[in-house]
Amino acid sequence: MDELASSIIDGDPIALSRGITMIESKNKQNSIKADHLVSKCLPYCVDSFRIGITGVPGVGKSTFIEAFGNLLTKREHKVAVLAVDPSSSLSKGSILGDKTRMEQLVKNENAFIRPTASGSSLGGVAQKTRESIILCEAAGFDTVIVETVGVGQSETSVHGMTDLFLLLKLAGAGDELQGMKRGIIEMADMIAINKADGENKRNAEKAKAEFNKALHLYPKKESGVDPKVMLCSSLNGTGLDGIISNLENYHKTTKANGYFELKRKQQNKHWFMRTIESKLKSDFFASEKVKKEFDDHLIRINKGEMTPFQAAENLLG
Amino acid sequence: MDELASSIIDGDPIALSRGITMIESKNKQNSIKADHLVSKCLPYCVDSFRIGITGVPGVGKSTFIEAFGNLLTKREHKVAVLAVDPSSSLSKGSILGDKTRMEQLVKNENAFIRPTASGSSLGGVAQKTRESIILCEAAGFDTVIVETVGVGQSETSVHGMTDLFLLLKLAGAGDELQGMKRGIIEMADMIAINKADGENKRNAEKAKAEFNKALHLYPKKESGVDPKVMLCSSLNGTGLDGIISNLENYHKTTKANGYFELKRKQQNKHWFMRTIESKLKSDFFASEKVKKEFDDHLIRINKGEMTPFQAAENLLG
Repeated sequence: MDELASSIIDGDPIALSRGITMIESKNKQNSIKADHLVSKCLPYCVDSFRIGITGVPGVGKSTFIEAFGNLLTKREHKVAVLAVDPSSSLSKGSILGDKTRMEQLVKNENAFIRPTASGSSLGGVAQKTRESIILCEAAGFDTVIVETVGVGQSETSVHGMTDLFLLLKLAGAGDELQGMKRGIIEMADMIAINKADGENKRNAEKAKAEFNKALHLYPKKESGVDPKVMLCSSLNGTGLDGIISNLENYHKTTKANGYFELKRKQQNKHWFMRTIESKLKSDFFASEKVKKEFDDHLIRINKGEMTPFQAAENLLG
Repeated sequence: MDELASSIIDGDPIALSRGITMIESKNKQNSIKADHLVSKCLPYCVDSFRIGITGVPGVGKSTFIEAFGNLLTKREHKVAVLAVDPSSSLSKGSILGDKTRMEQLVKNENAFIRPTASGSSLGGVAQKTRESIILCEAAGFDTVIVETVGVGQSETSVHGMTDLFLLLKLAGAGDELQGMKRGIIEMADMIAINKADGENKRNAEKAKAEFNKALHLYPKKESGVDPKVMLCSSLNGTGLDGIISNLENYHKTTKANGYFELKRKQQNKHWFMRTIESKLKSDFFASEKVKKEFDDHLIRINKGEMTPFQAAENLLG
């Protein structure tokens, strides 16, 4: 593990891949090793900017990240791309699974792409992704992109582990019906309307105006930076420079006003608390006896023999 | 306690009030007594219909519940009105606090009105309200209305303890800006647009059409009943008959298709689990030593010496 840690810190992508595989392993022995590995890497993390990107399937996330990532590396950044997708076991890796969709970025020596961590629970996937971010930062990646699909609860997870949350949208009313949850707009620090090219451009302009209107209904951002709506085309590369400038502006402003540090501290506390809660629960339910008692009590509750509160008191003694 | 239980089961409103006061007490001794009381009452609960009602301040909840409750008693129902308002300690009882706003209902012998349970945590208030529902049902109230304000998290609580969730709205675009959270529309089983009278009627019709449009964007209800948008005026009593017919239809349909029972079972399991989790956490943090260790670990996390996950592992041993 010490050797693997040194190779990661030296920036060896193969070692980084192996390290993340270790983190993702469900084997108890490996998870102890992974823990050790993360401890070793932690002091070597570079200052980084963590960007969460979400958008429903079809919005062009892969092509966007490919164009965006390549542009960032041209500006001397080292870019790592990770994904959170709790549903990947069902969808068989709908996001990042098909690496060929990022043909250029995958060959770029200043980029590192890691397909979806699979896992049975979102909490588990989120923990693994957070620890993988540490390894990437220890390997010198100063820009970490965490991708997620715009359905389900994974956005909240990704929002809770990144410095900026970028929502990718398409022009056209149809998008609203694609299952994007409304709360996601509220979480966004920036909205980029993708595929704003050709005949689509006019619709995109209209969508931009609508989103700007919608954003005014939400309270002021704690970050002190008003969320911007930007147009872009991953196809012909337009708008990406503007997006990067705005991201840099967000980074600089929140660093200066203290929000950047504050948010990371809040995230730390949040994950610390969530992990304690989840461990307390899994330790408690680890015993077969408790599981059986839980089921027995549930039957009695449903029969109207006791309330859920009495049953809980009973179970916890 | 046995005597108090018998009086409650006999339908004595003063005994019911005393019982709820017992449930709401923060005194440890009283809470053991309350527990005993709830156990005694549980087998005597009548079959009931639990209705959650929410709406932002100004929407006319009190006048609506007064008119609605009186009409229900005329149809041979016994109506209990409770409230969940975790913020009541701040707002000094903004909901149901002023009983004089329900002048007629408060005098109606087939109605029981209980002002807001105050409490420091929403979880605590929710538990107390759920146990108070049991006492009301043991006292023969077959319709239990649980009121909450349309801000914060209390709607989710009330939604999780009732059979039907009724959202009260006002016509006019201003309402959207009154702080109502968007997710609430998704939870609604029925929307009633209040104050649809006089000059307001036209606006109310327009709002109805808009809500109907908005409701189509959400997935089909598990209940098998499409949420209806209804117009009413608590002032002149119009529309209330239609609302009651629709509620009865919902009740009948969900009883027949099994959703009513299923939802109650899901709610039982949910509250059972939440209570276990919250007890595990409060038991764990009850020790001063753990609290101090938590703070110490948090400092080390923020210094980058350990990850939140390692700290949690450490703390739980």
